[in-house]
Amino acid sequence: MAPFDSTKLASLMDEAGMDMLLASTRHNVRYLTGGYVYHFHERGQRMGSSQYLAFVGVPRGRVADAFYVGASGEKMGLDVLPLWIGRRNLDAGDASSSAAAAARMAASLGADHGTVGVEMPFLPASALAALQTGLPGATFVDATDLLHELRAIKTDAEIAILRDVSDRVATAIQAGFRAGYDGVPTHEVAEKIETEMGAHGVTFLWAFTNAGPGYLRAPSETRWERGRMLHLDCGGEEQDYLADICRMGALGEPSALGRELTDACLEIQGAVRRHLRAGMTYGEIAAAAQDALQSSSHATIGRIVAHGIGMVSHEQPMINRPEQADRRLQRGHILSLETEFLHPEVGHVKIEDTLAITPKGAEGLGDIGRELQVIG
Amino acid sequence: MAPFDSTKLASLMDEAGMDMLLASTRHNVRYLTGGYVYHFHERGQRMGSSQYLAFVGVPRGRVADAFYVGASGEKMGLDVLPLWIGRRNLDAGDASSSAAAAARMAASLGADHGTVGVEMPFLPASALAALQTGLPGATFVDATDLLHELRAIKTDAEIAILRDVSDRVATAIQAGFRAGYDGVPTHEVAEKIETEMGAHGVTFLWAFTNAGPGYLRAPSETRWERGRMLHLDCGGEEQDYLADICRMGALGEPSALGRELTDACLEIQGAVRRHLRAGMTYGEIAAAAQDALQSSSHATIGRIVAHGIGMVSHEQPMINRPEQADRRLQRGHILSLETEFLHPEVGHVKIEDTLAITPKGAEGLGDIGRELQVIG
Repeated sequence: MAPFDSTKLASLMDEAGMDMLLASTRHNVRYLTGGYVYHFHERGQRMGSSQYLAFVGVPRGRVADAFYVGASGEKMGLDVLPLWIGRRNLDAGDASSSAAAAARMAASLGADHGTVGVEMPFLPASALAALQTGLPGATFVDATDLLHELRAIKTDAEIAILRDVSDRVATAIQAGFRAGYDGVPTHEVAEKIETEMGAHGVTFLWAFTNAGPGYLRAPSETRWERGRMLHLDCGGEEQDYLADICRMGALGEPSALGRELTDACLEIQGAVRRHLRAGMTYGEIAAAAQDALQSSSHATIGRIVAHGIGMVSHEQPMINRPEQADRRLQRGHILSLETEFLHPEVGHVKIEDTLAITPKGAEGLGDIGRELQVIG
Repeated sequence: MAPFDSTKLASLMDEAGMDMLLASTRHNVRYLTGGYVYHFHERGQRMGSSQYLAFVGVPRGRVADAFYVGASGEKMGLDVLPLWIGRRNLDAGDASSSAAAAARMAASLGADHGTVGVEMPFLPASALAALQTGLPGATFVDATDLLHELRAIKTDAEIAILRDVSDRVATAIQAGFRAGYDGVPTHEVAEKIETEMGAHGVTFLWAFTNAGPGYLRAPSETRWERGRMLHLDCGGEEQDYLADICRMGALGEPSALGRELTDACLEIQGAVRRHLRAGMTYGEIAAAAQDALQSSSHATIGRIVAHGIGMVSHEQPMINRPEQADRRLQRGHILSLETEFLHPEVGHVKIEDTLAITPKGAEGLGDIGRELQVIG
């Protein structure tokens, strides 16, 4: 049985006039398989003169005819690992041969003159060429946003992964602060966060490090000095689910303004968090966020943003897209909420939280070390 | 000054009839920039409805006119981080807008009616479409193999990275063996190797685990049991340079045949390693490898392969491509050499080493724990 909402997928494909979906990114292959990706190429796809490429194909409304295209190296693993998709071609593997195999399977299911959804900003050019050769009568359209819609409501199992990865990333940030000393270069803090995530089974994605004054966030030789603020805005992933958390620290007591701006971030975040409810429109959320920001005496140097997060950062719910202002927040939506103040002397003060919409309101994921961390 | 051999690049582009090179993969962008990639998207490129994409453009023979296309978030970092390329567009960032910006810069340098080399098995389809729109008179060809040629001879600095990552991967494999106990599932050993690499700043790529009998190499619930062999064939990377190492272990003393097959791998690997010299043809290397294998009484169940490794596994030198049999091994080439025996009762016995070609012969990178590791 399909591990995703196949009725919703059929309806989205119907609206989009899409006859066949051919997903090929790691995250969407994982989503559609219900967790399976070929372990050999999970973290790196390049090989020889091409790259490993897998496809999951789903003909509209016929989830029982879904198919999987992968590499011969997957055969033995798929004998012992679960994969709900029985129709498989494991004689391909690189970008062109996988696409050619996917085209043959799609054609055998009647897509040879249909509209085929692919992930245009990700699908390799050589793979699209092979699909066009194999399906010369088909029209190819982008399915990226359709897949965002499909993934928008997270199950409890998905939220559990997001909770776990958010907790681990927030914990790694704390280790970053604790590695601080007077004059530590920000790249050293970033490296500590990276190894800390790695040691706990989280794939490190990024660490932005701003040691005030100024706004430079790239890890560098810039030093975090006594009395100064440090912002650590870090990302990590588990099973393609992302965490994106920002916390503030100071080496010794910071300036009164530094503490005040951090407290303002926390206050604004708190006000919006308490306000969030399933059923609110995206427009109401954006307005509530602006109201909370404007209540601060520092609003002119502040900014607040809310965006969906899951397998992609800035996915549904797209709170800030004016054309979606009437859509409603639902249970299982995940929001990243970020408040920041840019002050030339203090630096870039920012708190970013992840929130799962529950029947009661919003649950913080990774709510660790949210208050200003004063070190040493 | 360009950090790569710009004379060689000009000559390769001349041979290929290529007027402009537009590289867009992380590893080739890093190679052409001399180490720079945007840290935010180093480990994950997807964002919103597209993905981050950078380009390095080099017009043939005019390395001073090279250009870089990236995202606005890179601006402040590039003020303090070194990048030899002065001509930059940092107002793009996603697949289509970066490609459109790259097309504009390429057109301004005269490529609007030329032959443009791109990485077809990697370049997103939407990016190729934007390039075609921006350069309607240009012809697009694949530059993947040309870039392999450009990168084929490693500098001492590159070899130092490869030595470091190979040592760390080999060390993580040893930690994997030491985590073994009677009945440990192979996925647990793989997870140990992953966290061990992560804790030491290596990006984990894969762990193949074969606990005999049988040939299953996917980490799974399969158990490593007393008296049985375990093969750990693992990959990791640092700064896009790969390590690919296989070592053998046993829980307690293995069968006589298990030890014999491991010793045979080591003997064959040793014979080929001692034989390698700059100046040998690829054909001579392949023949020497076959001779060494055939000297074993188990040759009928054995296989030996040599292939180049660096930023890509199976790159130049392509020892096993018959059409390249006359090419010669050079100082700075890196070989992965792997000998294996498949025996239904013992399992998959394999030793894989990485060898840097030096003026004196071949230096093993990651030569840690090559002998059979008997645990417990």
